[in-house]
Amino acid sequence: MRLKISCNLKFEISTPTPFILMLRPRSGSQQWVEHQEYEIKPGTPVFEFTDHYGNLCQRLIAQCGLFAISTSSVVVTSDYSDEAYGAEFVEIQNLPDSVLSYLLPSRYCESDCFNELAVHITQDQLLGYNQVAAITNWLRSTISYIPGSNNEPLSAIQVNNNGYGVCRDLAHLGIALCRSLSIPARIVVGYLHNLQPMDMHAWFEAYIGNRWYTFDATQLGSPGGYVILGLGKDAADVAVFNQFGPSVFPIEQQVRVEQI
Amino acid sequence: MRLKISCNLKFEISTPTPFILMLRPRSGSQQWVEHQEYEIKPGTPVFEFTDHYGNLCQRLIAQCGLFAISTSSVVVTSDYSDEAYGAEFVEIQNLPDSVLSYLLPSRYCESDCFNELAVHITQDQLLGYNQVAAITNWLRSTISYIPGSNNEPLSAIQVNNNGYGVCRDLAHLGIALCRSLSIPARIVVGYLHNLQPMDMHAWFEAYIGNRWYTFDATQLGSPGGYVILGLGKDAADVAVFNQFGPSVFPIEQQVRVEQI
Amino acid sequence: MRLKISCNLKFEISTPTPFILMLRPRSGSQQWVEHQEYEIKPGTPVFEFTDHYGNLCQRLIAQCGLFAISTSSVVVTSDYSDEAYGAEFVEIQNLPDSVLSYLLPSRYCESDCFNELAVHITQDQLLGYNQVAAITNWLRSTISYIPGSNNEPLSAIQVNNNGYGVCRDLAHLGIALCRSLSIPARIVVGYLHNLQPMDMHAWFEAYIGNRWYTFDATQLGSPGGYVILGLGKDAADVAVFNQFGPSVFPIEQQVRVEQI
Amino acid sequence: MRLKISCNLKFEISTPTPFILMLRPRSGSQQWVEHQEYEIKPGTPVFEFTDHYGNLCQRLIAQCGLFAISTSSVVVTSDYSDEAYGAEFVEIQNLPDSVLSYLLPSRYCESDCFNELAVHITQDQLLGYNQVAAITNWLRSTISYIPGSNNEPLSAIQVNNNGYGVCRDLAHLGIALCRSLSIPARIVVGYLHNLQPMDMHAWFEAYIGNRWYTFDATQLGSPGGYVILGLGKDAADVAVFNQFGPSVFPIEQQVRVEQI
Repeated sequence: MRLKISCNLKFEISTPTPFILMLRPRSGSQQWVEHQEYEIKPGTPVFEFTDHYGNLCQRLIAQCGLFAISTSSVVVTSDYSDEAYGAEFVEIQNLPDSVLSYLLPSRYCESDCFNELAVHITQDQLLGYNQVAAITNWLRSTISYIPGSNNEPLSAIQVNNNGYGVCRDLAHLGIALCRSLSIPARIVVGYLHNLQPMDMHAWFEAYIGNRWYTFDATQLGSPGGYVILGLGKDAADVAVFNQFGPSVFPIEQQVRVEQI
Repeated sequence: MRLKISCNLKFEISTPTPFILMLRPRSGSQQWVEHQEYEIKPGTPVFEFTDHYGNLCQRLIAQCGLFAISTSSVVVTSDYSDEAYGAEFVEIQNLPDSVLSYLLPSRYCESDCFNELAVHITQDQLLGYNQVAAITNWLRSTISYIPGSNNEPLSAIQVNNNGYGVCRDLAHLGIALCRSLSIPARIVVGYLHNLQPMDMHAWFEAYIGNRWYTFDATQLGSPGGYVILGLGKDAADVAVFNQFGPSVFPIEQQVRVEQI
Repeated sequence: MRLKISCNLKFEISTPTPFILMLRPRSGSQQWVEHQEYEIKPGTPVFEFTDHYGNLCQRLIAQCGLFAISTSSVVVTSDYSDEAYGAEFVEIQNLPDSVLSYLLPSRYCESDCFNELAVHITQDQLLGYNQVAAITNWLRSTISYIPGSNNEPLSAIQVNNNGYGVCRDLAHLGIALCRSLSIPARIVVGYLHNLQPMDMHAWFEAYIGNRWYTFDATQLGSPGGYVILGLGKDAADVAVFNQFGPSVFPIEQQVRVEQI
Repeated sequence: MRLKISCNLKFEISTPTPFILMLRPRSGSQQWVEHQEYEIKPGTPVFEFTDHYGNLCQRLIAQCGLFAISTSSVVVTSDYSDEAYGAEFVEIQNLPDSVLSYLLPSRYCESDCFNELAVHITQDQLLGYNQVAAITNWLRSTISYIPGSNNEPLSAIQVNNNGYGVCRDLAHLGIALCRSLSIPARIVVGYLHNLQPMDMHAWFEAYIGNRWYTFDATQLGSPGGYVILGLGKDAADVAVFNQFGPSVFPIEQQVRVEQI
């Protein structure tokens, strides 16, 4: 599937404000970036670096006045997400070194508090993919997916208490449940074709059978059309924009995804 | 100061258990490891790797029965911790790329919730070192340092509510307060000469004036004699041992630090 | 300066051939990639990774038949290269860890053989920038820059013996001379505005006064208009394409740079 | 096998001299460091860092006068080197990203010049382990291993011309031959039990069947008792000591390996 995605952000800046953006998709094993535009107005020096997780990040200082970011890309991505019922749990000792840190609790995924619930949800399941599939189904049936229901990320504990959340929040709870079973899990932020309502999206990946698989409790089946912008332990690592100093909110945010 | 430090741990293992240990101190800019022993009984294949933060980590599977780890080192470290009143806050745009992630909230340091308190504690302070010194003094006078008061790490919010904690917990609150002011901060786990009662120790570092400085709310003045085992965003990253599967607790844990 | 650069390559493949390409410019401290296209025909799975040096590399297997790569970018880059006569030599002990490896000899830069010549060329020069400027001037006056004079990279020893070479070869000799004086130096491959005749280009950077400076013995003065594709120790690290198995040469190669 | 290894170096320093040492063995998948001593006299500030390849490196400035380094370790290592006749060549497209750079030519391994010879040596061999075994046998029968025959590293071309070399030189030729067949290969520097005459040693590893295997053309059979100090592309990367400024040679160098 060839998708054209775009994200336009506008801010009204009243004091020079450092930003770290994560708005440039990278080609990787799951997607190929064929075309890409990234404009910042007014022109501003930008420094790009690669973070711990391999995400491309853009650093800049927005000056006072109107500040606009326009990005668009054409990305080739899969028509469906791989399913792999039966794919096996990877014993800790066989996990690659680089995957181990995805077992640890993080800001919004208090995996140290969820073992009991995770065991309950996954009882009778084969270890591995089937456990994560059971967790995803449990999220679908138990936690209401309410886009726009909150602005600040909810942690797994909060989502579980509230019983509802946005895509990112459901991902947090899914990740915490996986990690509590010693299954490495991470958040992914990006775009999804046909998302309703259209917006940035977040889902999660779990490491099973020696690779990462996609899980998304906000969607039925295993659709494709995902475009990855960034990945990390949880929403703290993959903010599409991080801004420092007095809070600034976009006065305009426009996300589009179309198949071409 | 030349310190001989040692840590011996014994476990009774009832089911083969994967461990990740962080018990080998590394030489770095703050310490020089002159002598080092690391024994595991019974002999077990161990794989050592370097994590994201540069810590040496040891992976192994403990078999059933008695499982003992003995480590000791002779480390040359500073006689005192550097103080630098007046050292300046580093603007976000001037921070090295590798330091940026220490601005983000993490499992036990919910820095996103502490800006108001941090501003209150540091009002009238010069930006930078003096702010962190004020935070450390505030911790000393407000949060009771009670060694042994809990086993599981407390997050900054919990410590602040409880009003007490172990060294690690005070560090969490200090870190969260720093990050909420856009000062990068990280936890350090290791040993401290003359610690009362003797045990593993934890403190924190803040990035000011283009380098990391040591802060320890559990001690008066700026003592030296610190030996670093690991550093990271918070206690989730620097467990001296991480163990997977059914919980196992040391049946013996012996920590010693002597000057030589 | 805003440049539109493009590179199109065509191959006739007679046996499935693994390629590693380095044709996607990255934003960094010296350039900002505003627009980018990367097309491969026929469509082929491509995996992109970041190498040791931070370069984006694309892995793929070209199937039999016509194989075409088209890339183009719009890049904002500086109007001139910084000059800094007087900028100081950085003592080894003050070099960042990550820069140290650029002091070592490499495939095409046998810096271990050039100390005598380098001392001769730079006598009476202030240590640092002025030494590298003297080396660059010496290259301009001693080694003939003959575009197209060879296909395979020449090493510094070979260039020095031959007395001529392409841009890449002159860079090799410049790098070897710098390293022999304990000045870190690296090759850069990319595009240059107004290059005559137009083609891919190579130049070098030396680390002085705590940053990297651009040097190009093939050009007079300090022009700007450089677009970086990759950097490394020498041409072995920054091939625009590396291909494995029986040799394959482009049947068409088209490079364009225009100011917009 | 449990080996006690030690290396003592003495220098007479006449001008303050920066050194980078690689004398601290690391635990890894092939060895476990149980005990370790590292003393520098007179006491000198040392900064340790991890290089690109994961080697621990020690930076320091030796002051005028006598300068002595004493290191010793007890290391658990394998009794024999794994053999794996039949282990398969890994197609380029299946190599891990991190292994790819070991296919490139380097300072002392001009693999771009050896394809013809390599094809000749390995004709009729199964692709993979058997090719590298054939190369190693060819080295044994064709290139005389003459310890102490030179001080400066010889490149593969030079060794091939000379027909003799030290361990490091034979490794260079072995590596160049492997890489010319698209088999990733790297040098290893360290210690070998029962080496005659005792000294530091160098050998090489080739990546076959999804792991690294040890090859040593200076020894018969597949002995064990190897202790790794450092690994890299060739001798340029793994000098036991790199020293900058006017040359300094050890006035004493003592290497010991005993089984315990």
